[in-house]
Amino acid sequence: MGEIAAIVLAAGKGTRMKSALPKVLHRIAGRSMIGHVLDNLAALKVAKTAVVIAPGMESVAREVAPHPTVVQQQQLGTGHAVAATKATFGSFDGTVLVLFGDAPFVGAATMTHLVRRREAADRPAVVVLGVRPEDTAGFGRLVTDGTGNLERIVEQRDATPEELEIDLCNSGVMAVEGAALWNLIDAIENKNAKSEYYLTDIVAIAQRKGRTVAVVEADEDEIPLIGVNDRIELAQAEAICQQMLRADALANGATMIDPPSVFLSKDTRLGQDVTIGPNVVFGPGVTVADNVEIRAFCHIEGAAIESGAVIGPFARLRQGSKIGANAHIGNFVETKNAVLGKGAKANHLTYLGDAEVGAKSNIGAGTITCNYDGFLKEKTTIGENVFIGSNSSLVAPVTIGEGAMVAAGSVITRDVEPDAMAVARGAQTDKPGWAAKFRAAREAFKNSRG
Amino acid sequence: MGEIAAIVLAAGKGTRMKSALPKVLHRIAGRSMIGHVLDNLAALKVAKTAVVIAPGMESVAREVAPHPTVVQQQQLGTGHAVAATKATFGSFDGTVLVLFGDAPFVGAATMTHLVRRREAADRPAVVVLGVRPEDTAGFGRLVTDGTGNLERIVEQRDATPEELEIDLCNSGVMAVEGAALWNLIDAIENKNAKSEYYLTDIVAIAQRKGRTVAVVEADEDEIPLIGVNDRIELAQAEAICQQMLRADALANGATMIDPPSVFLSKDTRLGQDVTIGPNVVFGPGVTVADNVEIRAFCHIEGAAIESGAVIGPFARLRQGSKIGANAHIGNFVETKNAVLGKGAKANHLTYLGDAEVGAKSNIGAGTITCNYDGFLKEKTTIGENVFIGSNSSLVAPVTIGEGAMVAAGSVITRDVEPDAMAVARGAQTDKPGWAAKFRAAREAFKNSRG
Amino acid sequence: MGEIAAIVLAAGKGTRMKSALPKVLHRIAGRSMIGHVLDNLAALKVAKTAVVIAPGMESVAREVAPHPTVVQQQQLGTGHAVAATKATFGSFDGTVLVLFGDAPFVGAATMTHLVRRREAADRPAVVVLGVRPEDTAGFGRLVTDGTGNLERIVEQRDATPEELEIDLCNSGVMAVEGAALWNLIDAIENKNAKSEYYLTDIVAIAQRKGRTVAVVEADEDEIPLIGVNDRIELAQAEAICQQMLRADALANGATMIDPPSVFLSKDTRLGQDVTIGPNVVFGPGVTVADNVEIRAFCHIEGAAIESGAVIGPFARLRQGSKIGANAHIGNFVETKNAVLGKGAKANHLTYLGDAEVGAKSNIGAGTITCNYDGFLKEKTTIGENVFIGSNSSLVAPVTIGEGAMVAAGSVITRDVEPDAMAVARGAQTDKPGWAAKFRAAREAFKNSRG
Repeated sequence: MGEIAAIVLAAGKGTRMKSALPKVLHRIAGRSMIGHVLDNLAALKVAKTAVVIAPGMESVAREVAPHPTVVQQQQLGTGHAVAATKATFGSFDGTVLVLFGDAPFVGAATMTHLVRRREAADRPAVVVLGVRPEDTAGFGRLVTDGTGNLERIVEQRDATPEELEIDLCNSGVMAVEGAALWNLIDAIENKNAKSEYYLTDIVAIAQRKGRTVAVVEADEDEIPLIGVNDRIELAQAEAICQQMLRADALANGATMIDPPSVFLSKDTRLGQDVTIGPNVVFGPGVTVADNVEIRAFCHIEGAAIESGAVIGPFARLRQGSKIGANAHIGNFVETKNAVLGKGAKANHLTYLGDAEVGAKSNIGAGTITCNYDGFLKEKTTIGENVFIGSNSSLVAPVTIGEGAMVAAGSVITRDVEPDAMAVARGAQTDKPGWAAKFRAAREAFKNSRG
Repeated sequence: MGEIAAIVLAAGKGTRMKSALPKVLHRIAGRSMIGHVLDNLAALKVAKTAVVIAPGMESVAREVAPHPTVVQQQQLGTGHAVAATKATFGSFDGTVLVLFGDAPFVGAATMTHLVRRREAADRPAVVVLGVRPEDTAGFGRLVTDGTGNLERIVEQRDATPEELEIDLCNSGVMAVEGAALWNLIDAIENKNAKSEYYLTDIVAIAQRKGRTVAVVEADEDEIPLIGVNDRIELAQAEAICQQMLRADALANGATMIDPPSVFLSKDTRLGQDVTIGPNVVFGPGVTVADNVEIRAFCHIEGAAIESGAVIGPFARLRQGSKIGANAHIGNFVETKNAVLGKGAKANHLTYLGDAEVGAKSNIGAGTITCNYDGFLKEKTTIGENVFIGSNSSLVAPVTIGEGAMVAAGSVITRDVEPDAMAVARGAQTDKPGWAAKFRAAREAFKNSRG
Repeated sequence: MGEIAAIVLAAGKGTRMKSALPKVLHRIAGRSMIGHVLDNLAALKVAKTAVVIAPGMESVAREVAPHPTVVQQQQLGTGHAVAATKATFGSFDGTVLVLFGDAPFVGAATMTHLVRRREAADRPAVVVLGVRPEDTAGFGRLVTDGTGNLERIVEQRDATPEELEIDLCNSGVMAVEGAALWNLIDAIENKNAKSEYYLTDIVAIAQRKGRTVAVVEADEDEIPLIGVNDRIELAQAEAICQQMLRADALANGATMIDPPSVFLSKDTRLGQDVTIGPNVVFGPGVTVADNVEIRAFCHIEGAAIESGAVIGPFARLRQGSKIGANAHIGNFVETKNAVLGKGAKANHLTYLGDAEVGAKSNIGAGTITCNYDGFLKEKTTIGENVFIGSNSSLVAPVTIGEGAMVAAGSVITRDVEPDAMAVARGAQTDKPGWAAKFRAAREAFKNSRG
């Protein structure tokens, strides 16, 4: 393929989202919609990309950086939005893809089809991406000549009954000959009801100039194209995306007891013979090796899990968790920025934050690494073969040497030497008969109160 | 509209529910079925309401209080059930709605349609609510005259093939002219196979008296009418109700990653830009302000959450929880009757019961408010900017002053002054080599045991 | 019925599963697929069963023990697999069922239909189980004579257009006359593209010998037959199985707020008026008595729950948990090998392992039974009416006598007498102004660093 550049339109307000967040920043499978578009572009070799935003959309600019953004000062239509990039984008000799920040599922394969068709022997000036939505209402229909070339785009309101039967619709996405782009864009007029400049008009303009306009359809292995205009469509897009991600994971040899209740991120990587129970949520940045069992009700993000590990149920692995081979993370356990060695275990009601746990060490139920003093985060280092008794508090920074033990209920504030035993708790005192007296008094008081 | 009264039939045993609980007390979206009926009536101005129950249904009487209940001593049909209210209900000049405790989705709009039709110029004595169920099997068909008036109700077993094609069916719900009610009811006979008195017979009785009988259909924006006779239908009614509640929430600007796994109560209020992860359960009494993030696996009831707060994953907010603006409630944290100030944080493995936490205070992992001594519940008061070290126990009643700190692992039994530091834990003792010896002894013992 | 024996074919590698685990060991509803087959056989009176495995499938042999396994040294087809059992299986006079380890839903009723048809007056030598799959692609079609007898099996590739219209397909499952079995098997030839010995060929062989071959269909109350060849089909089989299990539970008088999010095991037993919230997972071995409430997000396996108990939300009951009548297990609580008496409560953030808790005892939030010292598991015994203060650690082996109390935050290492109060924690020391100074210093340090 020749050189490619991309213009991504992201200035739409998305009023129907009823959101203070710009529409293209709403997330699907853990990634903003415009992030999906940029990821898909990244799979191609793209010479330059410009993103068109509206005034005040600094959050979008941050999301797409280092790609440059151009502010479209007024919202005067898609053609006007593309025109806004002229100064920064400049002249470009290859193919320019025009994409939409709220159409996240135009994949690299489809983009490649668009570009290759643009480069075909008949050199179409414009290639339009056609879609076949379940419900065609509101879409412009693509009238083709039977050889894959576009005769015209008919808007729904102007269509004859026969034309309304056409199910091939205009997605808005296009590939345009770079050398022709600005001539086409400059020729768009705004003589219409809304006085807007419609990008779609370049089809007719190109044809008037004697150029061919072609149509290609989306790659069938990709997620079907869907526009997202409100929260219901956002949920539908999420559902479709999840279905594709789950199917891929199953095909690669993961078992899911109940696939519809497993939520993946776009970048989740699952090995073979990974077994996943119902209700597991994978946030961004998770890699799971082979033969891992993830039981029901787990929430995992930014974590790497080695082969043979058993996670959950009710485990939460956060950013920076590295779970070693055959390690166990049990119920009501949270790890954050924590590295566990081979065969280490933290099975119950534990918080491991900013911690390193050596191989085969056992972290008792209710153990807390006290990593925060209200100002700074400090590290807890636990050696190999350590036994931390239940309900212990490890006040960081602190190191528990290899083979050491900590007695149950201890608050450890000093380093413990290898093979030593540390105890830090109060002595037990028993008061015979005290409970019986207390009970009698409390019952009397309770009765007196009514 | 003129005056309205309502008779709600709730004496049915609901044998197919296989339950010791009266059928109308089974819940949908956190509210008993008869509670839904009474809520919907409350949206109208209703002069009086009577609920017909069977002997022994005191639990239903408690649920519907302060509305009066009438006990139908024998179950002799729906007409007999209405007749049972005659003495207490007395004469009434407006419109009487006859409703069913196991048909919770007859909404205020539909009730209004019934009453307005009853009050129309042609003054029908009876207005029947017609429904169009997906499966008409078993329903009586409504034969109309083409102008919205009812000619007759044909039971399924008596229907001709043409009549069986009619999809407009009798819901049983009616609006009756109050002045005519008892005359109509008294004329019902029980000459039928089961020797029962059927309320439906008043249609023919009214017509014999020369009165008009009309039909209206349910309001199309309401939850479709569905009768609940067994647990499968109960689950279906729950599913339909949830679908409507979720669609409303999405339309109002909440994001749900996976709407089917979010469970709302009838009274759940969600602000704009509230983001809800998969698997979140809202019990009754929850209000969520704008821009709140509720992560996966949360269980929330009786709670108010202010703007910008972040909840979960794995958080449980119980009755009386008030979470301040930008506060954080993290994983494996339970709050009950707990008020958290702006920006307060309780992020891990914590129980806050009967507690007040000041703004910007940080509650360390594993903190427990010891609010119960086996007899009485006592309160914990934590000022602003307090730091509670991890794994601490706060034995109520106790106050931690503004700006104070509690050392990790402390058991606090006395008030702590503002800006003071409280420590209440054992000193650390280390026994060099002890762990190695213990390990050797334990391994020897374990081997000796086999 | 006469005598029955069974040969279960389980040597298939299941390449499309992409798994190191033999295909028949993949689980559905908590039970391996071949386990389902053996359970269903167990409901009949079966004289002997042999399971055919491939070399290296010791894990399957362990799963099916004490049933004998026969190793098929080479994978030369289903006929060859049955032939491999000849020596061990020997002669058998009754009916031999040939079943497949990856077709777990051939139930006892269907097996009975097969055997009874085999024993009917016309004594068919072979009875084939016919299925009507939604998608017939790839299946052999069963051409019948209109009286329930089989004329022939036509493979898809050899079928005429008319034969392709037949929706009755060959499941592969058969009942064969024991006396004729080995004669039929020995006559199978491998003159085909793959040079394999197909069991299906015994149909034609029997007919050539002048014997009748019959067809029966699966019992309609059973889970529809489905073959499992990849993880997607495994998930589908799980979904269908769960749907049947849930429908049974609902019909028996359990309420599920959201049936699709409740996961049952094959052996889960639920009483009447059991209410189950969304997202509850039942592993194997769970019995729930009447009137139990199981709230959302529970994970339960190997547990018995008595009448009136309330479980969850967010509770995990593990192997050996016995929850007494009206007892409460609350959020973030784990029990394992733990027996709780009537009305006992453990409501928050607790681990009860290897423990006995007497009636009406209250276990405070954050209590941990320290049952493991790194080598041995020890027991905690708590009497009736005991009050364990929050955040306590009970270091096993230890006994807390009836009516005793343990102060919050105590580490109990010695037995506590009945009615006594035990305290084992550090004394509280307050350092006035210390927190203010610390804060100032920390802020200065933080500023200097950053």
